[in-house]
Amino acid sequence: MSKSIFYHAGCPVCISAEHDIISLIGAENVEIVHFGESKDRIPEAENAGVKSVPALLTPNGHVLHINFGASMADVKA
Amino acid sequence: MSKSIFYHAGCPVCISAEHDIISLIGAENVEIVHFGESKDRIPEAENAGVKSVPALLTPNGHVLHINFGASMADVKA
Repeated sequence: MSKSIFYHAGCPVCISAEHDIISLIGAENVEIVHFGESKDRIPEAENAGVKSVPALLTPNGHVLHINFGASMADVKA
Repeated sequence: MSKSIFYHAGCPVCISAEHDIISLIGAENVEIVHFGESKDRIPEAENAGVKSVPALLTPNGHVLHINFGASMADVKA
């Protein structure tokens, strides 16, 4: 199975959700992408359907928007 | 570790998220609560901080609101 990808932007809501997701599904099953450090990953996330962060892209291509930290417009600002 | 609890109300967004969560963390690690069948579980969920469904209550008491299907006000209507 391919990994899930957890996209976030470093906000407190993001960090809290990151800890929860790693605890639930295991660090080895999820790639963490921080847009503050990896702005080049933003187009890929938007193409996948990510509208806000934190968000989890599942191996089957579904996007789970988890709580609400920031919109993608905020992330790109 | 105690189980997570996935609260939902049968909406399409809920069912899709249910499948994703079960796929990610395993059916044996999550209790599924459908408010349409278990209205008596609504107060417990609200006390835990569930504001909308679908939502996942983690074993450490955090609530992950996943996408958005319906508010708790809608669920109780």
